[in-house]
Amino acid sequence: MDRRNFLMKTSLGASALALPGWLDAATEAVEQKTSGSAKSFWPNGARLAISIALQFEAGGQPISGAGGLIPEPIKKGYPDLATNSYFDYGVHEGLPRLLDLFDKYGVKATSFMVGKAVDNNPELAREIVRRGHEPAAHGKEWAWQYQLSKDDEREWIRSVKQSIEKATGVTPLGYDCYWMRGSVHTLSLLQELGFIYHNNDLSRDEPYIQQLNGKPFVTMPYTIHMNDIGSYDFPGFSPADYEQQLKDEFDQLYEEAATRRRMMLISFHDRISGHASRVRVIERFLKYVAQHDGIWYATKGEIAKHALATPDITPLVKRDVAEKSGLAGNTNL
Amino acid sequence: MDRRNFLMKTSLGASALALPGWLDAATEAVEQKTSGSAKSFWPNGARLAISIALQFEAGGQPISGAGGLIPEPIKKGYPDLATNSYFDYGVHEGLPRLLDLFDKYGVKATSFMVGKAVDNNPELAREIVRRGHEPAAHGKEWAWQYQLSKDDEREWIRSVKQSIEKATGVTPLGYDCYWMRGSVHTLSLLQELGFIYHNNDLSRDEPYIQQLNGKPFVTMPYTIHMNDIGSYDFPGFSPADYEQQLKDEFDQLYEEAATRRRMMLISFHDRISGHASRVRVIERFLKYVAQHDGIWYATKGEIAKHALATPDITPLVKRDVAEKSGLAGNTNL
Amino acid sequence: MDRRNFLMKTSLGASALALPGWLDAATEAVEQKTSGSAKSFWPNGARLAISIALQFEAGGQPISGAGGLIPEPIKKGYPDLATNSYFDYGVHEGLPRLLDLFDKYGVKATSFMVGKAVDNNPELAREIVRRGHEPAAHGKEWAWQYQLSKDDEREWIRSVKQSIEKATGVTPLGYDCYWMRGSVHTLSLLQELGFIYHNNDLSRDEPYIQQLNGKPFVTMPYTIHMNDIGSYDFPGFSPADYEQQLKDEFDQLYEEAATRRRMMLISFHDRISGHASRVRVIERFLKYVAQHDGIWYATKGEIAKHALATPDITPLVKRDVAEKSGLAGNTNL
Amino acid sequence: MDRRNFLMKTSLGASALALPGWLDAATEAVEQKTSGSAKSFWPNGARLAISIALQFEAGGQPISGAGGLIPEPIKKGYPDLATNSYFDYGVHEGLPRLLDLFDKYGVKATSFMVGKAVDNNPELAREIVRRGHEPAAHGKEWAWQYQLSKDDEREWIRSVKQSIEKATGVTPLGYDCYWMRGSVHTLSLLQELGFIYHNNDLSRDEPYIQQLNGKPFVTMPYTIHMNDIGSYDFPGFSPADYEQQLKDEFDQLYEEAATRRRMMLISFHDRISGHASRVRVIERFLKYVAQHDGIWYATKGEIAKHALATPDITPLVKRDVAEKSGLAGNTNL
Repeated sequence: MDRRNFLMKTSLGASALALPGWLDAATEAVEQKTSGSAKSFWPNGARLAISIALQFEAGGQPISGAGGLIPEPIKKGYPDLATNSYFDYGVHEGLPRLLDLFDKYGVKATSFMVGKAVDNNPELAREIVRRGHEPAAHGKEWAWQYQLSKDDEREWIRSVKQSIEKATGVTPLGYDCYWMRGSVHTLSLLQELGFIYHNNDLSRDEPYIQQLNGKPFVTMPYTIHMNDIGSYDFPGFSPADYEQQLKDEFDQLYEEAATRRRMMLISFHDRISGHASRVRVIERFLKYVAQHDGIWYATKGEIAKHALATPDITPLVKRDVAEKSGLAGNTNL
Repeated sequence: MDRRNFLMKTSLGASALALPGWLDAATEAVEQKTSGSAKSFWPNGARLAISIALQFEAGGQPISGAGGLIPEPIKKGYPDLATNSYFDYGVHEGLPRLLDLFDKYGVKATSFMVGKAVDNNPELAREIVRRGHEPAAHGKEWAWQYQLSKDDEREWIRSVKQSIEKATGVTPLGYDCYWMRGSVHTLSLLQELGFIYHNNDLSRDEPYIQQLNGKPFVTMPYTIHMNDIGSYDFPGFSPADYEQQLKDEFDQLYEEAATRRRMMLISFHDRISGHASRVRVIERFLKYVAQHDGIWYATKGEIAKHALATPDITPLVKRDVAEKSGLAGNTNL
Repeated sequence: MDRRNFLMKTSLGASALALPGWLDAATEAVEQKTSGSAKSFWPNGARLAISIALQFEAGGQPISGAGGLIPEPIKKGYPDLATNSYFDYGVHEGLPRLLDLFDKYGVKATSFMVGKAVDNNPELAREIVRRGHEPAAHGKEWAWQYQLSKDDEREWIRSVKQSIEKATGVTPLGYDCYWMRGSVHTLSLLQELGFIYHNNDLSRDEPYIQQLNGKPFVTMPYTIHMNDIGSYDFPGFSPADYEQQLKDEFDQLYEEAATRRRMMLISFHDRISGHASRVRVIERFLKYVAQHDGIWYATKGEIAKHALATPDITPLVKRDVAEKSGLAGNTNL
Repeated sequence: MDRRNFLMKTSLGASALALPGWLDAATEAVEQKTSGSAKSFWPNGARLAISIALQFEAGGQPISGAGGLIPEPIKKGYPDLATNSYFDYGVHEGLPRLLDLFDKYGVKATSFMVGKAVDNNPELAREIVRRGHEPAAHGKEWAWQYQLSKDDEREWIRSVKQSIEKATGVTPLGYDCYWMRGSVHTLSLLQELGFIYHNNDLSRDEPYIQQLNGKPFVTMPYTIHMNDIGSYDFPGFSPADYEQQLKDEFDQLYEEAATRRRMMLISFHDRISGHASRVRVIERFLKYVAQHDGIWYATKGEIAKHALATPDITPLVKRDVAEKSGLAGNTNL
């Protein structure tokens, strides 16, 4: 049995096409082929894709119980007015400021929108799309969905899809769960409802494809260490550290991108990165990026479509964690 | 239906006058008018208002149970002597040191005073006013008020108002709740008791007006990311990070202030920022600000009055979160 | 009623002699007198006293349940071997390394010793004294004492006193409670047992005197923000931040020391600051201090004796928090 | 009784050979001898040993309940798909990237492997060994073992040993418990199963020997402050701080290594340090080290064997914490 077949049997499911780089060198025949030039991993000769998520959550939070502002939880039965105003910053200052910054540097991002947030401020959803960004779905409300029944989860997803379509006229192709946690049914339901990718896998720095019900479905990689919610929204916030991490992450991936398909993943939240000092941090990073050639600010939808169009260099992964876990019932994964 | 009307219907209640900046450009007719010169957003041609809150809480804490010093809570029934001495630093070292620093740089601040703190150290409250700062109210004690009945909350507010009047001879115009959390009655009660603004909204970088009972009431914006309690009083304190954030926040708002009304919001606590090393951080920031023209160190009372006097450029917002939430009973908002 | 009498009535008990600096300027007659020259606040013309606490806790921790190493608590009934080895670092590497560093820079410190730690490693306690440092008491074990009965607390204090006397031949004059929390009886008990100062008050940057049972007792100020346990032992440790804070704290106090009695307070723990990289941070700070004149590395015992010998410039404070709290029974304070 | 005998009686068990450095100078005769040249503490004239632990945990985590990614725990009964993908990063990106970096700088490390992780990705375990690193054991699964019965713990250890042998053909010599916590039986069981060292003691910066059942067993020192899981995986992550700590730790130990046996201990986790920006931090550190002579990147197995071969300069320690604690039953320690 060769290495490829050996690896295919592993329970966490890295398939042949997902062989790590070191294995390529040690194996004479793998399916993961790369074309002759480094430029060919992405369209138009781009060297590195930068994928920015712009979370539109303001107004999607629960009227009481959302975290991030006040250490002590509020008692049940009272609306958390201060926290609601904190989220509201995303609409009044945060998103407008970030949209202006993105325009200045030619950044196109993917905006994950909470359904209730869109319903409350459809004009802002429309403006995001008017600026050239991709609308994608981030749940009906800013709350867990993994514990819903399969039917309830289907309605949860359908609801946010409809909110986005109604406000922007665009059908979302991508999906992001609250705090990244989906159920064992999530991917099948997304496929059933016309989505082509999800955003809740942190295992790689490049997209991969799964076969679901006989059809390909794209997993867009995600990161938490490049997510502002991990930098600013917990004790120990440090803009300087975040700025250096952004640059270091870029440098390393830009270097690696000469020989592999690489993408850099960043996530900004409306109420978090939209503050004045934080926009300053982001602008310094965007200026730094602008000194480099071959950058493609890509929406996740564009990347997913490109991944589907280039199956020869996109890993094909079989995942069956849930089935083996004994923790959940049927799954279509 | 035009964008303005569309937005007015949103449940989080951004009214016509609260349209974000990007919308102004896209809409031909909005009420939010700005005069010809950038200087006119604030009195006397000032470009940027800097509003500093100076929290006077020493002596207002509970005899046992206040946090911020020792990780493990004290058992019930014992006075927390160490923590009380920690708060006491505000009276003996913290506020005196900050007051001297503010004098040196011509800073006028708004001091939110806890009633019990004022009762315990009225001379210090008087000294704060003698130095030219605005006394404002920060609750009867350093404790939650959102869960009080409407009548009890009225007495809570009246009590701190009387403490301040007795000690300083000045009637407070502004109010700040413990950890920012008020009830659905708070604003109406403040209006009833003669206050003209509250300080517990984090949704903007400029003041706005609400109509309460047919009369205008001002919301002064607040920030937590520029609040020392979010930097020093939790794990991960970093003076250098705080200093850079202060400068970045200033730079961005100063830039934006050329075309919009902008104010910078900072909050210092007596026992937190009053320490020697932290005063050093603040002084470096004040020196940095002093290199710029057009700075107005304004009390929140001055800003609130100016907001009321310039309704043409002050957003008028209708908020009805509580009514819709189903979480609370009647509200006069 | 003049300001002095007014202030004396406040419940947190700042007495006439504890009037903050700003009040001196505003009042014609206060007892807090300073002599003509700034040099006279400390012996031998020193300008600034630097008081370093060196915590000797290794071996004093409970066999199971001590925190600081592993996030999840251990189940009851199992010894926490890893955590015990973590504390043990203080004996084998931490204290030896710090003692060598202090010798190199002529630093004399006060070592607060846990009784059980001394019993387990008496030779190390002796070595600390041989190097010229002051032995002081830090409880019988590394555990709470505030909830003990008065008699049990007396034995608790007597026990650590005896451990130190037995190991070093020196009678300790000062006392520091576990995590700073004493009971309403602690100070009286300390006085009864021959101690002249305690270390658990965070309200000032200078010592003060109380009259207990008709005799003076000294309070040495303490800080948590200059304590390594607040920097390194919780998430968000940052040596660079700690280093800058040390320098900033020094600069500000050195400046203020020209006109007031000022002392800088630092606390190092055996197992925390004793690590190689952290000793490097401390050495950079000590080098920085060495560039200044008028520094007195004083033990707390020396400072307490000097405070008692200079009542004209040492604040006299009346504290009665506990009596008023209704939380505790009789108190001799 | 001389100092040496006095110290031997202490309950935390520092034996004669473990006398701290300061005691050597004060005592005329101790067993801890060092040869004439500083170079002789390590083989081939090396001055400082650098021991890097490379944690291979991806796939060894529980299907639900592993921490480090999402603040709120998942409800029981659901697989945590997002967290599983987070761990999976170690296989697909983290370890491959770190292995390439280590090759570039000639680093040989010790990889502590979770049994289940090896079973799921045996090819990667094999690749780690092929690159010249030492495979060592890190438990059957990524979970506590201290509360197992002695027989169950024996099987736990035997299981991971077999997984490693099966995948790599190498018998592991070293062992590391989940979050460092072993039972009172762990060391005896390791010895019984052929291991020669364990990795869960934080009390020193050099190895030491215990006599277990009449045979020597090596304790390799460990650190948490040089462990990436303490820097990045909790709030307040700071790459710059981590980088500076690495350099400071190196500088201090390199200096001390002129006269004592010293080793620097670092620990990297697959899913944590394997991210692009973090590899950048490590590379800057490795570049810094490369400017110095006398560095030995040693596996822990090599160090343990050298410690056993040089009993004249390796401390011999008697530990009996557990027996005295009254918390556990029989122990063979």
